[in-house]
Amino acid sequence: VAPEIMAAILAANNDTAPSYGADAASTRLGALFADLFECQVRVFPVVSGTAANALALACLTPPWGTIYCHDTAHIVVDECGAPEFFTGGARLVTLAGVDGRLVAADLEAALAVAGAGNVHHMQPAAVSITQASELGTVYRPAEVAAIAEVCRRHAVRLHMDGSRFANALARLGGSPADLTWRVGVEALSFGATKNGALAAEAVVFFDPLLAATFAYRQKRGGHLLAKTRFISAQLEAYLKDDLWLRHARHANDMAARFVAGLKPLRGVQLLYPVEGNEIFLRLPAAAFAALQAAGFAADPWDETGLVRFVTAFDTDPADLDALLAALAGALAGALDGALGGSA
Amino acid sequence: VAPEIMAAILAANNDTAPSYGADAASTRLGALFADLFECQVRVFPVVSGTAANALALACLTPPWGTIYCHDTAHIVVDECGAPEFFTGGARLVTLAGVDGRLVAADLEAALAVAGAGNVHHMQPAAVSITQASELGTVYRPAEVAAIAEVCRRHAVRLHMDGSRFANALARLGGSPADLTWRVGVEALSFGATKNGALAAEAVVFFDPLLAATFAYRQKRGGHLLAKTRFISAQLEAYLKDDLWLRHARHANDMAARFVAGLKPLRGVQLLYPVEGNEIFLRLPAAAFAALQAAGFAADPWDETGLVRFVTAFDTDPADLDALLAALAGALAGALDGALGGSA
Amino acid sequence: VAPEIMAAILAANNDTAPSYGADAASTRLGALFADLFECQVRVFPVVSGTAANALALACLTPPWGTIYCHDTAHIVVDECGAPEFFTGGARLVTLAGVDGRLVAADLEAALAVAGAGNVHHMQPAAVSITQASELGTVYRPAEVAAIAEVCRRHAVRLHMDGSRFANALARLGGSPADLTWRVGVEALSFGATKNGALAAEAVVFFDPLLAATFAYRQKRGGHLLAKTRFISAQLEAYLKDDLWLRHARHANDMAARFVAGLKPLRGVQLLYPVEGNEIFLRLPAAAFAALQAAGFAADPWDETGLVRFVTAFDTDPADLDALLAALAGALAGALDGALGGSA
Amino acid sequence: VAPEIMAAILAANNDTAPSYGADAASTRLGALFADLFECQVRVFPVVSGTAANALALACLTPPWGTIYCHDTAHIVVDECGAPEFFTGGARLVTLAGVDGRLVAADLEAALAVAGAGNVHHMQPAAVSITQASELGTVYRPAEVAAIAEVCRRHAVRLHMDGSRFANALARLGGSPADLTWRVGVEALSFGATKNGALAAEAVVFFDPLLAATFAYRQKRGGHLLAKTRFISAQLEAYLKDDLWLRHARHANDMAARFVAGLKPLRGVQLLYPVEGNEIFLRLPAAAFAALQAAGFAADPWDETGLVRFVTAFDTDPADLDALLAALAGALAGALDGALGGSA
Repeated sequence: VAPEIMAAILAANNDTAPSYGADAASTRLGALFADLFECQVRVFPVVSGTAANALALACLTPPWGTIYCHDTAHIVVDECGAPEFFTGGARLVTLAGVDGRLVAADLEAALAVAGAGNVHHMQPAAVSITQASELGTVYRPAEVAAIAEVCRRHAVRLHMDGSRFANALARLGGSPADLTWRVGVEALSFGATKNGALAAEAVVFFDPLLAATFAYRQKRGGHLLAKTRFISAQLEAYLKDDLWLRHARHANDMAARFVAGLKPLRGVQLLYPVEGNEIFLRLPAAAFAALQAAGFAADPWDETGLVRFVTAFDTDPADLDALLAALAGALAGALDGALGGSA
Repeated sequence: VAPEIMAAILAANNDTAPSYGADAASTRLGALFADLFECQVRVFPVVSGTAANALALACLTPPWGTIYCHDTAHIVVDECGAPEFFTGGARLVTLAGVDGRLVAADLEAALAVAGAGNVHHMQPAAVSITQASELGTVYRPAEVAAIAEVCRRHAVRLHMDGSRFANALARLGGSPADLTWRVGVEALSFGATKNGALAAEAVVFFDPLLAATFAYRQKRGGHLLAKTRFISAQLEAYLKDDLWLRHARHANDMAARFVAGLKPLRGVQLLYPVEGNEIFLRLPAAAFAALQAAGFAADPWDETGLVRFVTAFDTDPADLDALLAALAGALAGALDGALGGSA
Repeated sequence: VAPEIMAAILAANNDTAPSYGADAASTRLGALFADLFECQVRVFPVVSGTAANALALACLTPPWGTIYCHDTAHIVVDECGAPEFFTGGARLVTLAGVDGRLVAADLEAALAVAGAGNVHHMQPAAVSITQASELGTVYRPAEVAAIAEVCRRHAVRLHMDGSRFANALARLGGSPADLTWRVGVEALSFGATKNGALAAEAVVFFDPLLAATFAYRQKRGGHLLAKTRFISAQLEAYLKDDLWLRHARHANDMAARFVAGLKPLRGVQLLYPVEGNEIFLRLPAAAFAALQAAGFAADPWDETGLVRFVTAFDTDPADLDALLAALAGALAGALDGALGGSA
Repeated sequence: VAPEIMAAILAANNDTAPSYGADAASTRLGALFADLFECQVRVFPVVSGTAANALALACLTPPWGTIYCHDTAHIVVDECGAPEFFTGGARLVTLAGVDGRLVAADLEAALAVAGAGNVHHMQPAAVSITQASELGTVYRPAEVAAIAEVCRRHAVRLHMDGSRFANALARLGGSPADLTWRVGVEALSFGATKNGALAAEAVVFFDPLLAATFAYRQKRGGHLLAKTRFISAQLEAYLKDDLWLRHARHANDMAARFVAGLKPLRGVQLLYPVEGNEIFLRLPAAAFAALQAAGFAADPWDETGLVRFVTAFDTDPADLDALLAALAGALAGALDGALGGSA
């Protein structure tokens, strides 16, 4: 947790306050996010990205609706069916896309044969895209706009899982509005937890009508906290003086530094363009083992030698350089081993 | 509806009877299906295949479970999310398979990376296979056994959607047990509606423990009928004197006759082996239009020129021959048109 | 099942027809019920009263809604939670009422403190009344209108469970419209099964907008039958030439005859006004036992000596008189026994 | 938030840690609660009482189950249907009890007629009692044991909503085990938020088998936090050196001091025995208005003049005495006004 945010939590404890979101900080969130996004919004603070996504999607899709997303989307891979639970049984339909991003043409093709209006089939209801994507790439505004155009044509809603929204904006520049409602996003899970908050995400609706049932869903989901002001305080500190963007820029910069450091190394494959703070590599098993032996707590992403590295708001360049050095050694050792093995 | 079954419905109306399945015919179903399958079973009559499948699957999978099935499975394509509804939010994961049938190796590969025991992921719970498959092919017992072996290794349940079970058995011979519990099937949706009943399906559990919650799920699903005896009477008539197999054999024979009649025709493509009572053809659009103009109510299966023909227990060979003749004419016309068009 | 209805089922089998409700009989239902109710309606045939009620209520209430009903309502007592299932978790709140009927003032009192708009509380959404009531009494139109007025004031919907609607109308006279939309009913479960059908109920919406999601809910509930025409045919026969009202009048008359026959008997207590075809008596245990010994399959309604008798469209007056004679004997015997016991 | 707990949150931020509850503090919770309750437990930290209750109940009851609780229980009044949502449609059945507590005999009477085993009825599944109760009273261990005995006889589970468990234990003395599993409680929502935590509750299962599905339900409910260590740290600090009991004792003492101060006052009615930290009074409207005018932010509990006061871990006796003085003045003024009005 970033010190500025921890300080805000402490400061929020200075007196008693109305509970369940009627406090001053929570009340200020509406104006704060309206300023941030340059439009009227409805905004709801919650404690987890899974809750943010599932509650948002439940406002956009009926129980017999389908939600289209990328194969790797957090909502389909890592939330144990939260979208299905909160929607009352909607279905996630996955598309392959490119480098972790949905492609408008694929979506168009899927929606064209989805059977809208035919009671035998589940009904197309929503699309969810992840910004930055799960593979560390970033949607350009025009890509989002193209997807939104397909959505409009098929009368489905567009949700953005922005658990790494800060990293995307830090990369692309422009304003938050340029990445969201101006290109057709209707609801956003605005993440802070992965970028320095303790536990704070904001669900932002750009069309207030879509938010009509949110508060009931939130409460019956156990996600309306008595002491909501401590979530709101985190969000205020997160946005204050562009803390969120500074943090995201640092994380992105560290990722870029890591990629630069990889350049001279042989035996390692960079799998996707690094546009945010995630780097996916394919490493020889021996190199990976050597890294772990050297004390780096890297986790394998899957069984194929794919390893994910994530830089953070507080990544120390010296630690990064030490990792690069260790990686260089591990790769050299693995290469030797492989040559030796084949000798 | 087959006359024998309609007669049974009439006969069931001859006096008053206890309601909600406490009647004599319903009570006899247990023994009837135990005889049929040569083992102890729990059996429940319902009025639709969708209800049979969804209720059965709800007994096999928790709300956070995944159900693996073929891309074309009725449960994923044609039931508007009934499995999701009855399970409370389970997820259908589809696999491509071959000619409409799941393949054990694909299933093994999917289950190997499913993340069993990891709370972030939905949990593998069940596999559903369709016999005969949606593309008119039939699983061999050894194929089912191979799938069941994968299921056992991964502790997932095996369900069979047998809305065309009669056609499969008529094709393969052997006993109903050989196609089900002897090769590892644990729950079966045993269909009668598509083969001559008015509205009657039986959900059969080969492991009584799996049926423990069925009756409550059935009742709260609105699927426990006051006058259940009229469903039970249909099932009795369906099984009596092998009516079901005679009907299925006729339908299969008619499909084979149709395929034989297609042999000499040019311009038509038979897409899958015809092993039951469904035939999938790819036809030129002009030929299809000509068929419709000739009064045949063929429905296009999709946008690509694929047409499905289904023979029934009461298909008249003369009608079939007329269809073949019309098809021959339509194809010839289409071919001429195409040649003309290219001239 | 009434012979006229069984004949209609047979007749519906005379040729092939489009499936899933696209057949001619099903298509005619809209106009048939529009005529019956003298207004535009949306109508959906289903096979059970539980399905009719639960599907209708699911169209009227969100998952966080409350549905108000009488303590004895079928939806709360006898449907194993079907309303909760189909609505996705709505709550039934029961009120005591009078003689099985809700009272407008009680409803007003309950709604006044329900916390509408407060996210901590479930939200008032619908009221369901049963006509004729579960205790054999009948709502007068003015009573329904008073309830509807409370509903309107609190923006909740009014549903009528009309599984015995025919008996109520036969008792009250007037038109179906007078008992429903003219006094504020917005959705009706129109029953036929208890009055001579095999398995046929119609869900009728007087406001088409309320029906917008019905077809998807029906399909995913497994309640869209392939051979829907056999349900529709029952409903057509049921309404034809006022068969339904003749049957209901007969049942009501038989109930009245039974009550008249009870008059001279001592030791039996009639619990509620008999206005339809249900009679609730309190009998000495010895008398009840004697009745059963004499071969009458009376079922005790509860543990307190309460017994329910239900007359039907085909109740034979001679059977009724035999029952009355047996009851007279049983009561006399019970009285003797009681006196003897105290001697 | 108590300073000791805020300090623990700060301290938990001193280095990186595994996420999603794999951190050291979360790992220690099992042993910590096993010590506290003198038995093996499964324990899960969550951020809200509503989540704790709903997740616990979902482990104890099927979707067609009924949960018995007091009329005033938080689960039925204040959670917007969270139990219905997490259980998939279970029903809450309320009983009147005495002074906010369920009574074993009432429960026995309700369960005796609940229709266990009859598919037409929802099935008795669980009982939830609130300790301390919503009306500020406390169950004696013998009362809980009597309820548990009824539960055992009817094979239903016993849950305790312990959002004010600390206040109950502070009042009754003895050990946590004496109030829970030793008298038959099987699952406990152990609250900390109302007694000084920021957002921390623990769901404790005394029978590990009952917890088998908890982790999946928690994750799909969005209640598994990435930075779970900050909840666990709160719970550790809460339990350390009996902080929780000291805080609860203070709150209880303040409530007792308030009651003592009420003794000499006329015109105010104390509604229930004050055994924890809640005081329910009936006040004249004029007195209530005068209190508010004097700056006390008392909230009316309902429309009948009932007012609830809640003392806290940090209630200052001086503030309390000021409230009592203001109340004395308000009551005197109200009495004068009433006399004047009647003169």
